[in-house]
Amino acid sequence: MGLWHAKNLKLRVPNAELVAVSDIDKATGIKGSKATGAPFFEDYRKMLRDVNLDAVCVVTSTDTHAPIATEAAEAGCNVFVEKPMAITVKQADRLERAVRKSDVKLQVGFMRRFDPAYAHAKKRVANGEIGKPIVFKSTSRDPFPPPVWACDPKHGGGLQIEMHAHDYDLGRWLMDSEIASAYTSAECLVFPELKRRVSDFVDNTLITLGFKNRSMGLVEGSLNARYGYDVRTEIYGTDGMIQVGSIQRAPVAVYTRRGANAETAYLGNKDVPHFAQRFGEAYLAEMVHFVETILRDLRATPSLSDGRAALNVGLAAFESTESGRLARVRA
Amino acid sequence: MGLWHAKNLKLRVPNAELVAVSDIDKATGIKGSKATGAPFFEDYRKMLRDVNLDAVCVVTSTDTHAPIATEAAEAGCNVFVEKPMAITVKQADRLERAVRKSDVKLQVGFMRRFDPAYAHAKKRVANGEIGKPIVFKSTSRDPFPPPVWACDPKHGGGLQIEMHAHDYDLGRWLMDSEIASAYTSAECLVFPELKRRVSDFVDNTLITLGFKNRSMGLVEGSLNARYGYDVRTEIYGTDGMIQVGSIQRAPVAVYTRRGANAETAYLGNKDVPHFAQRFGEAYLAEMVHFVETILRDLRATPSLSDGRAALNVGLAAFESTESGRLARVRA
Amino acid sequence: MGLWHAKNLKLRVPNAELVAVSDIDKATGIKGSKATGAPFFEDYRKMLRDVNLDAVCVVTSTDTHAPIATEAAEAGCNVFVEKPMAITVKQADRLERAVRKSDVKLQVGFMRRFDPAYAHAKKRVANGEIGKPIVFKSTSRDPFPPPVWACDPKHGGGLQIEMHAHDYDLGRWLMDSEIASAYTSAECLVFPELKRRVSDFVDNTLITLGFKNRSMGLVEGSLNARYGYDVRTEIYGTDGMIQVGSIQRAPVAVYTRRGANAETAYLGNKDVPHFAQRFGEAYLAEMVHFVETILRDLRATPSLSDGRAALNVGLAAFESTESGRLARVRA
Amino acid sequence: MGLWHAKNLKLRVPNAELVAVSDIDKATGIKGSKATGAPFFEDYRKMLRDVNLDAVCVVTSTDTHAPIATEAAEAGCNVFVEKPMAITVKQADRLERAVRKSDVKLQVGFMRRFDPAYAHAKKRVANGEIGKPIVFKSTSRDPFPPPVWACDPKHGGGLQIEMHAHDYDLGRWLMDSEIASAYTSAECLVFPELKRRVSDFVDNTLITLGFKNRSMGLVEGSLNARYGYDVRTEIYGTDGMIQVGSIQRAPVAVYTRRGANAETAYLGNKDVPHFAQRFGEAYLAEMVHFVETILRDLRATPSLSDGRAALNVGLAAFESTESGRLARVRA
Repeated sequence: MGLWHAKNLKLRVPNAELVAVSDIDKATGIKGSKATGAPFFEDYRKMLRDVNLDAVCVVTSTDTHAPIATEAAEAGCNVFVEKPMAITVKQADRLERAVRKSDVKLQVGFMRRFDPAYAHAKKRVANGEIGKPIVFKSTSRDPFPPPVWACDPKHGGGLQIEMHAHDYDLGRWLMDSEIASAYTSAECLVFPELKRRVSDFVDNTLITLGFKNRSMGLVEGSLNARYGYDVRTEIYGTDGMIQVGSIQRAPVAVYTRRGANAETAYLGNKDVPHFAQRFGEAYLAEMVHFVETILRDLRATPSLSDGRAALNVGLAAFESTESGRLARVRA
Repeated sequence: MGLWHAKNLKLRVPNAELVAVSDIDKATGIKGSKATGAPFFEDYRKMLRDVNLDAVCVVTSTDTHAPIATEAAEAGCNVFVEKPMAITVKQADRLERAVRKSDVKLQVGFMRRFDPAYAHAKKRVANGEIGKPIVFKSTSRDPFPPPVWACDPKHGGGLQIEMHAHDYDLGRWLMDSEIASAYTSAECLVFPELKRRVSDFVDNTLITLGFKNRSMGLVEGSLNARYGYDVRTEIYGTDGMIQVGSIQRAPVAVYTRRGANAETAYLGNKDVPHFAQRFGEAYLAEMVHFVETILRDLRATPSLSDGRAALNVGLAAFESTESGRLARVRA
Repeated sequence: MGLWHAKNLKLRVPNAELVAVSDIDKATGIKGSKATGAPFFEDYRKMLRDVNLDAVCVVTSTDTHAPIATEAAEAGCNVFVEKPMAITVKQADRLERAVRKSDVKLQVGFMRRFDPAYAHAKKRVANGEIGKPIVFKSTSRDPFPPPVWACDPKHGGGLQIEMHAHDYDLGRWLMDSEIASAYTSAECLVFPELKRRVSDFVDNTLITLGFKNRSMGLVEGSLNARYGYDVRTEIYGTDGMIQVGSIQRAPVAVYTRRGANAETAYLGNKDVPHFAQRFGEAYLAEMVHFVETILRDLRATPSLSDGRAALNVGLAAFESTESGRLARVRA
Repeated sequence: MGLWHAKNLKLRVPNAELVAVSDIDKATGIKGSKATGAPFFEDYRKMLRDVNLDAVCVVTSTDTHAPIATEAAEAGCNVFVEKPMAITVKQADRLERAVRKSDVKLQVGFMRRFDPAYAHAKKRVANGEIGKPIVFKSTSRDPFPPPVWACDPKHGGGLQIEMHAHDYDLGRWLMDSEIASAYTSAECLVFPELKRRVSDFVDNTLITLGFKNRSMGLVEGSLNARYGYDVRTEIYGTDGMIQVGSIQRAPVAVYTRRGANAETAYLGNKDVPHFAQRFGEAYLAEMVHFVETILRDLRATPSLSDGRAALNVGLAAFESTESGRLARVRA
């Protein structure tokens, strides 16, 4: 993912110059350096110190997002940080202090807001075409589980905190209301071997959300969508409904004696990860936006408070998993 | 709805003879009599006594389903009863005793099982094509609210008990597991005037189900689908997914400067109610099945215990609405 | 097909009484008689003489449509005749004289006009939603060839005259202009064994039509659509386009590692022929319309001149097949 | 279009270096130079002489494709040339001689072969999944007419020669057979003002193709697709069918009282032309392929003979427009 952003910055983001790359894994870092021509730093702190940086993109393992972003902010850099922005309230507090003190910009990687389909949906909801939105439903299904470290909700991975951060953010954005409560139904049904290694591991979730304005939401996740990467959202209102997303990959269908057959989503290409295929334009657009925000001194968005709001919902969703009861979201 | 079944029995169900009709509303009853040529009885008890009936179809207001079905069974008639079969456990108990004592057959009107699309889905789930089913999602959205009496969950109407009976039955049938728990999120968001008349009234629901085998379910309902009658179901398994249902009515699309436009479901026809348009074949097929079951002495299905199971889930869903907590389903 | 119409008349057409059936094949006729309760006549002439008939439905082999319809008209009966209404201009002339002389009504079996999807398309074209229609495209693909006698264009079968009669009629109706010329490209590519028995046999066609108002048309046919019965139409205008028809049978899709799979059209049901599944409602609606036309003394439609127009296009399409050149349609 | 290719070469094509740009229009050329950092040459001949070029991309007005490509080949450059490669047989002959003499590579810009959907279709046809392909149908509809100079078939524009070159190439490629004849039905129905300026102007076409192996084809074009850029292809075989293309732009649908609404194709974005939105990936992929072909000394494809074949079909299609008869394609 870091390489993906780096290539975009190198090749496709206007007015951006990629001046350095860093990675905890030396081989990966050198690969990134070769691909982009930017010098490699084994120690990101040395990079922050020695290179004259306007901005830093933090695309690391989940639990280090906030700490590294904090250091970058303290070094005076504007910061793009992947989601989830933080995995504890304490992390988020520290990051916020650093950003304020240094007066830098911070953008969170909720790239779905930059996807043409989601952006179009937002526009039509805002136009009032479906009346007042009252039910939000979002499905995020991955074709296979992430690395083990990313499976543990307590360390900021897991469906409740890491994966569904996108869905919480979409909910707040599209429904134009904060999320006040979460009730989670979650199970490990498919990968018992991961459950043995991570006690809080779940591979399938159904999370009911209560919005402040009494609208309702349902976030659904899975790590075993064998048919492909499946991200779909439905916004239902007093006067209509909007559906976003499709399971079909390309506009091709084959009709034979066995019925109609269409390729499903985004598993065929070895070189490009499934999410980068579906959201390739959005990953580029969010980075273009980040650079413009800095150059034209605009308000950063999705903002630190957006990142914090999604974190709070994730923490409530995880709390509800543990307690079996409705959990209030920290305001 | 009664008239619909009566016409099917008169015209389209082989080996059935419609010999009498009854209705609490005289005008409706006489209309039905005229349409079918069958004599009208103001008093259904007189009909049960005086006419030589093999079977009775009970298509009355929700709270009278079980009492009338019980009387019919006591009179020695085989019984087809609309869903929900009963609205209290006591009603169901009495009905069961009468059916056993008279040794008659009882079929519940879960007609979706007879819809070609749902039947096809069941077959492919049973074939193992999606592996083990682990998540069940069912949407039932009506284009407008029912009469007031049918809006009150305490009297057997309402989304939780009456409308979603179909969804609970689909869940049990397609997932091949009993439902053990329900957590309900439900609100009155669109029709406050109905809330003033029925204190338990809700118009939008999100109900999380827990199956005995740890699979999960989500049932979603609404009474304000302005775009049409919207019934869709998704069964997600360890190896794939099946989607049933479509929002588009007929295969016509119009493309202009304003984009693509397609007719949505089932609101155009003044003569035929929306559900009868979508499920016309299924309403006929369940009645054909009922008559065959009697003539060939087969096991009735969907059975009394299917009706009871859906009732128990509905009662738990309503209990959860009141308590704000997970409710166990009576075994 | 005759049995299909007979059952509709017996069971589902209001104000119609089926009083007699006749068939050249005794077994088929007796089967129809049993299914409907109407007495069977081996000799249709005896039926025309002895039974007091208001109307007759002619659903026989193609070359006898017009002769029998003529006799029925001469006997003073209103006539419903399957398409093509006639296979020669002489047949059509005689039929027209008989209909005029007896002053009876004649309706041709262009049932697609009664299909909800086509009717909706017609309405939206007429509303001007796509501007002026300028290109008409119609695909008619059968899943397998008809009986040998129906394969011979010279005896009124074949794609050019029998099968595409529907498409020519749709073209005239939807484009609101007569067809002036036809250029046919047609080949026997799949069933050489039929070509050996019928020298003019073709199994695939592409027929370019020229309308009087300079609009253009393309009619395409095949007898080897292994994936199912495929009837689709596109009307393209100066301001938009309308598509009618779908290849998918029921709203069910299965998603697995092998992609998305949907049932294609109308081959599964052994009891009901594919066209009756797709156009079941339309077959009923045209018969309801026929009976209403008689009872309320309305103008018959699709009319004798509609039947004649489709015949003339078919004859030109066949002439073009033989000559390899554009053929003018007889005015 | 030239700028589009230039930016791809500058930013996204591995192992390529953009060293010079040239344009007959000085302002456009300077704009391209600024966007890419490559020096601008007012005189392309000077560029061919003075710059050390491995390859040249010819993206000029249609009638200059072949002459400039010929000069580039004579200068020893490998050549990428937009379609149509040439507009007369004489032009094509000269170009072929130059390419042979200089022993350079020439690739024609049939980029649809590089589109993921078309590539997938090709693979499945080649796999035999639809049996032997027997009918090819291709629709190319533009949302508005091109500049006047490109409307004249005699100068290499027009639907028959310029626009449908893509469709002829797809036909040859997907059906794996040469095209032997063309019959054209073409009219000016929408833009009479263009007809006054270009006497051979047509805005809507239906072209029937005959393949050498007796398969049939239909190419359909228009310049007034108000609903968006509409490129779709259907390959029909003895055992099934493949459909490529979709009219919907992004996976978003809005459902209201007025039915379902979806955005149609590719008209919304002011910065990117419609064809570049639909085929953006393909334009990049063909250029990556061209560079690889040179670096790894592979056989160029789509080749000079592919370009010549499409030209010959276009010339026959235009001849048929004039004569009203079937035209043989030059072998």
